[in-house]
Amino acid sequence: MAVYTDVAADELAEFLDQYDVGELLSYKGIAEGVENSNFLLHTTSGSFFLTLYEKRVAKDDLPFFLGLMAHLAGHGISCPQPVKMRSGETLGTLAERPAAIIDFLEGVWPRKPSVAHCSAVGQALANMHLAGRDFAMSRANALSVSGWRPLFDAAESRADELQHGLRTLLTAELDHLEKSWPKHLPSGVIHADLFPDNVLFLGERVSGIIDFTFACNDMLAYDVAICLNAWCFESDYSFNVTKARAFLNAYGRERQLSDAEQNALPLLARGAALRFLLTRLVDFLNVPPGALVRPKDPIEYVRKLRFQQGVASMRDYGVAASGLVA
Amino acid sequence: MAVYTDVAADELAEFLDQYDVGELLSYKGIAEGVENSNFLLHTTSGSFFLTLYEKRVAKDDLPFFLGLMAHLAGHGISCPQPVKMRSGETLGTLAERPAAIIDFLEGVWPRKPSVAHCSAVGQALANMHLAGRDFAMSRANALSVSGWRPLFDAAESRADELQHGLRTLLTAELDHLEKSWPKHLPSGVIHADLFPDNVLFLGERVSGIIDFTFACNDMLAYDVAICLNAWCFESDYSFNVTKARAFLNAYGRERQLSDAEQNALPLLARGAALRFLLTRLVDFLNVPPGALVRPKDPIEYVRKLRFQQGVASMRDYGVAASGLVA
Repeated sequence: MAVYTDVAADELAEFLDQYDVGELLSYKGIAEGVENSNFLLHTTSGSFFLTLYEKRVAKDDLPFFLGLMAHLAGHGISCPQPVKMRSGETLGTLAERPAAIIDFLEGVWPRKPSVAHCSAVGQALANMHLAGRDFAMSRANALSVSGWRPLFDAAESRADELQHGLRTLLTAELDHLEKSWPKHLPSGVIHADLFPDNVLFLGERVSGIIDFTFACNDMLAYDVAICLNAWCFESDYSFNVTKARAFLNAYGRERQLSDAEQNALPLLARGAALRFLLTRLVDFLNVPPGALVRPKDPIEYVRKLRFQQGVASMRDYGVAASGLVA
Repeated sequence: MAVYTDVAADELAEFLDQYDVGELLSYKGIAEGVENSNFLLHTTSGSFFLTLYEKRVAKDDLPFFLGLMAHLAGHGISCPQPVKMRSGETLGTLAERPAAIIDFLEGVWPRKPSVAHCSAVGQALANMHLAGRDFAMSRANALSVSGWRPLFDAAESRADELQHGLRTLLTAELDHLEKSWPKHLPSGVIHADLFPDNVLFLGERVSGIIDFTFACNDMLAYDVAICLNAWCFESDYSFNVTKARAFLNAYGRERQLSDAEQNALPLLARGAALRFLLTRLVDFLNVPPGALVRPKDPIEYVRKLRFQQGVASMRDYGVAASGLVA
C-alpha cells in the first residue's frame, strides 16, 4: 500500500490550479509504490499521476528524478513525464510535502514475464542507457558496493534467523565483492530497479518505464545484471537461459556490451543479487509484528545469489562471449 | 488499503473477454474500501471498477448488492452500475473470487462537508429511499439492534481500556435501546453506511452514491439518523445545527418524514451512534500490534452518542417538529 498522506479535494483543486490540466473529476489513492503516496487523477483533460514524496525520499534528489524523466521522454523513451506548472516548475508542495503531477501511462506490468517480454525489456533498457548519455545531472548510487557493508552490519547478527548459514554466506560474498568490484566499466544513468512491476506493456510492446526512485549514475552493465536477476528466473528460482539470451541479445542489438562488460557480468550479477538480498533482509528483520505489509522474500535472492556464484561466463547466460547477437 | 488479491494481466484480460468493455489498457489497485479488493481499469471504452469480493463479504449477498445498484441506477439514482457480461450475468469469477465490473463514476468525496454538501446528500438519500421502494429483493440488517449485543459482549470487558466509564455507558445504553427501539416505522432499502467517503460530488452536486456493502432493509429514518451523525458534526465533535437543518429539510422536500419518524429520530440517532461505536470499538481492541492500518477512532462515536442522548426533539436538530421544511 502506498497512501501515507490523504489529500482534501479543495486542497488538490487549488494545487491543480497551477497547471493547465483541466478540472478535477476524481482521484484515487493507488496501492503501488512503497516510497511515496500516489494518486491516479482524472481531469477534464485526461489521466495523470499525483505523487507526494514522503520522508524516505530525499528532497534534494527530486530535481534529478524529475529532470531525468523529462530528459528521457525528450529523447524518445516512453516514461512518465512531469507536467510543468504555468511557472515552468515541475515540483510543487501539497499537504506539506513535495508533490508532482506526472503523465499517466497506459499499460500493464507482466506478472509472469515471457521470452518476448524479456526481449522487449532488453531493448528498452539499452535505449534508456543511450538516451541518458547526455543528461547533465548526476546522482551517486547509495546502494552500490560501498552501501552494502552498512546493510550487512545491520542484519549480520540475525541473518541466520532467516536461513542457517546465511551469515557465513554473506560475510564471504561481501568480502569477495568489495575486493573484486570493477571500477572502470562504462557508466551512465541507470534505472537500478527495473523489475517487472516497473515496466508497462501493451501486448508485447513496452509502453513505459516507470518509477525512477532509485535511478542514479553507475555502471551500465550493473543495470543489465539487475535485470538478469529480476526477469530471467522462474518462480521456482530456476534460471531460464532462453529468457536470458533473449534479454541480452536484444540489449546488445541496441548497445553492444564491451568485452570488459561481458567478462564482468557474472560478478555484477552476484553484486546485484547481494544488493537486493541485503535490503530485503533488513526489511524482513524489521517488520513490526502483525504488520499488514508483507516484506518481499529475501530467500528468493539467496537462491539467485547462489546461482550467480556458479556462473563462469556469458556462455552460462546462453550467449557466446564477444558474440552477443547469435 | 484494499488490495488483498493481485491479479495477473492475462487472467484479467481473459475475464474481460466475457464483457463488451474494449481492450485492457491499464489497471491499478485502489487504496479504498476495506472489505474488498478494488481496481481502477482503463480500457479502450473508458474507465471501470473491478471488485474482487473477499471472504468477509458473504457470497450469497452479492446478488442483492449488484441487483440493488442496477435497480437504483435504472430509477435515476446516480450509483455505479454493474456491467453485464455478454451472457447477461453481472457476477463472475476471477482469481478464485467472485468478481464484478462496475461503472466508474467521476467525483470526489468531501473531506470537510459544507452546508451545501449536507443539503445535497439529504436530497440524494431521500431519492434513493424512494427509488428503492419497488426493489424486489431484501436483505436483513445484521447490524441493527439485535446485532449490537454480540458486539457489546465481545468488547465489554475491555471497553474501559479506551475510556474510563465506557463499559457502564454502553451497558445502560444498550439496555435502553433494546427496550425502546421502534418497530413500526416505514421501512425499505437503506444504504446503512452513507458516510462522506461514500458520496461523490462534482462541485456541490452529488455525482454518485457508492459502496453498497452494508445496504439492507431497515427503517428509512435509521438511514437519516446515520447521516445526521456522519455529516453534521464538526471535527471537534461539535454539532452543527445549520448542517442538520439543511440535511433534514432537503430530505423532507423529497420524502416527508412522518410524525412517528420525527419523534423517533433522536432515539434512532442514539442507536446509529452506538452501532458505529461498537464496531469501531471491536476493531480497535483487535488491531494487531504494529499494524499499518489505523482503526477508526471509537471516541468520535462516544462523543456523538453523548450528544444524541441529550437531544429531546427535532427542535434540537434545528427544525420545528412536523414542519420539516422551514
